[in-house]
Amino acid sequence: MTARTETDRVVALCGGIGGAKLALGLYRILGPGTLTVIVNTGDDFEHLGLRISPDLDTVLYTLGGIADPDRGWGCANETWNFMEMLRHLGGETWFRLGDRDLAMHVSRTEWLRSGKHLSDFVNRSADALGVFAQISPMSDNAVRTIVETIEGDLAFQHYFVRRHCEPAVKGIRFDRAAQSKPSGGAAKALSDPNTRAVVICPSNPYLSIDPILAVPGIRRAIEDAAAPVIAVSPIIGGNAVKGPTAKIMRELGLAVNTKTISAHYDGLIDGLVIDESDAADVTVADIPILVTRTMMRNLADRERLASEIITYAGGLLRRPSKRAVEFAP
Amino acid sequence: MTARTETDRVVALCGGIGGAKLALGLYRILGPGTLTVIVNTGDDFEHLGLRISPDLDTVLYTLGGIADPDRGWGCANETWNFMEMLRHLGGETWFRLGDRDLAMHVSRTEWLRSGKHLSDFVNRSADALGVFAQISPMSDNAVRTIVETIEGDLAFQHYFVRRHCEPAVKGIRFDRAAQSKPSGGAAKALSDPNTRAVVICPSNPYLSIDPILAVPGIRRAIEDAAAPVIAVSPIIGGNAVKGPTAKIMRELGLAVNTKTISAHYDGLIDGLVIDESDAADVTVADIPILVTRTMMRNLADRERLASEIITYAGGLLRRPSKRAVEFAP
Repeated sequence: MTARTETDRVVALCGGIGGAKLALGLYRILGPGTLTVIVNTGDDFEHLGLRISPDLDTVLYTLGGIADPDRGWGCANETWNFMEMLRHLGGETWFRLGDRDLAMHVSRTEWLRSGKHLSDFVNRSADALGVFAQISPMSDNAVRTIVETIEGDLAFQHYFVRRHCEPAVKGIRFDRAAQSKPSGGAAKALSDPNTRAVVICPSNPYLSIDPILAVPGIRRAIEDAAAPVIAVSPIIGGNAVKGPTAKIMRELGLAVNTKTISAHYDGLIDGLVIDESDAADVTVADIPILVTRTMMRNLADRERLASEIITYAGGLLRRPSKRAVEFAP
Repeated sequence: MTARTETDRVVALCGGIGGAKLALGLYRILGPGTLTVIVNTGDDFEHLGLRISPDLDTVLYTLGGIADPDRGWGCANETWNFMEMLRHLGGETWFRLGDRDLAMHVSRTEWLRSGKHLSDFVNRSADALGVFAQISPMSDNAVRTIVETIEGDLAFQHYFVRRHCEPAVKGIRFDRAAQSKPSGGAAKALSDPNTRAVVICPSNPYLSIDPILAVPGIRRAIEDAAAPVIAVSPIIGGNAVKGPTAKIMRELGLAVNTKTISAHYDGLIDGLVIDESDAADVTVADIPILVTRTMMRNLADRERLASEIITYAGGLLRRPSKRAVEFAP
């Protein structure tokens, strides 16, 4: 384990609410400008003609200190008069857009329609919100998460928000992922020789992390990364803290435990962080495991977990690249 | 003068705030479904990627009973959190968009981008707001008012809102007016044999009424209309009630009086309604003039003025079409 220096960098992969909690913890304990958060954009969609990036906004608002503390998504001190008027006008109201939040959607829509990159919009927004971390979409290409359910294929937000994750999931795919490229920020951070750890946040592995890993260049870059890759299991006490993770695992015929999570990231990770309530699972794992408290109820929890992960990463050995092994003579 | 029947129809031409006051008066004293308001869309513009129709919205909100009573534009009980966040993000904030108001802009933008007509959006919005009048844009084609100032050409909202009407006006033109066609609702109302009066509201003749008249088919239809055409002068006591009308008249070298207004509409109108404070101007006019109180401070004023105009129209003779005269052998 080496002492961390000013140039040491950390990369986090995350989706929305749950993952953003750990991203905030990392942001707060690391030096300014040393954290890169690569964010899922498989959830992005066009609604009411607006280009909406739910996970990017959650990370921006969370790191910018303006996220609503109770909902976890959207802005604090939000009002809903746009929605009320929209309802009055007979518009679609199943996806809630707050009045403050709309400024992001309207600005982003104008930005993207003029042919500019999502990455640059996020950089600009992060600057405006005083965020001293690199927040990067997984890709500037549109990759779309499609949830294959017993009722047919559903675009992510239709499954997640409109249908409240009710239809049983048969599979999940990421349309146009094969042709997508990592965003410049994501590629740069993963190949940076100063990167000391790649942290897969406790976001939903199937809905929030897999879309990121479905970008071929990101998966390759993580496989090739010199830094250890650590996943934080979203399972606590044999269940998911929040959201549909456990429900989806059951629907996909998977056991809801850390072993399933470990197997899911097999070949990609060098270490797994699990909750103490799942300590019994340690015996079955074939990679180093850090057992700690992964529930993040408050800011102190987030900072402590982030700090433990960074320390843990410093003691991990990087496994040989799985890809490199495949290509070995 | 004939007694009005259920099928008698009235057409009003107007711009935003001032004209909408009289449109509301007409709306309240006429039977449901008998008023058509043809609204200026020369002020329409795209801002932040949103398609904004200020005068149409003012008329919709006014007739729908949700206009802000103090500002005259926008929605009552409005909030401004979108603007606050936009400012935070470094966006353009010179044009104020209220949170409720945004629902109209976002919905309209989506509607127009999908290739549908502005007219149909307005019909749908009027239905949603419970407005029992036909509100029609002057055209479904984009006509744009350009104010030629001593500082150069300014798009209308840049002149009106961004520059607060400060640069002196040298001329006003209506880009793409020559190729524009009246909207279906405007054409239908003006050619309807049951139309008993065409009322030019006391909107700014140069900025709000002229763009409507610049649509060739509208001017022709008004010239050909069987019903008398009555203009209500926006001048009260040798000045304009509000807005830049008097300032622009002076800058264009025009005397600020009802004679100038009468001359402006020469060949188009059969009667002029002026304020009692300008009664001295009557002697110089060559068309019938109704002298009354045209200042509309409250709802009763609006209804009384509307009622007087309708009665006045019933007693007017339609002059021979100026166009017909021009083409006579």
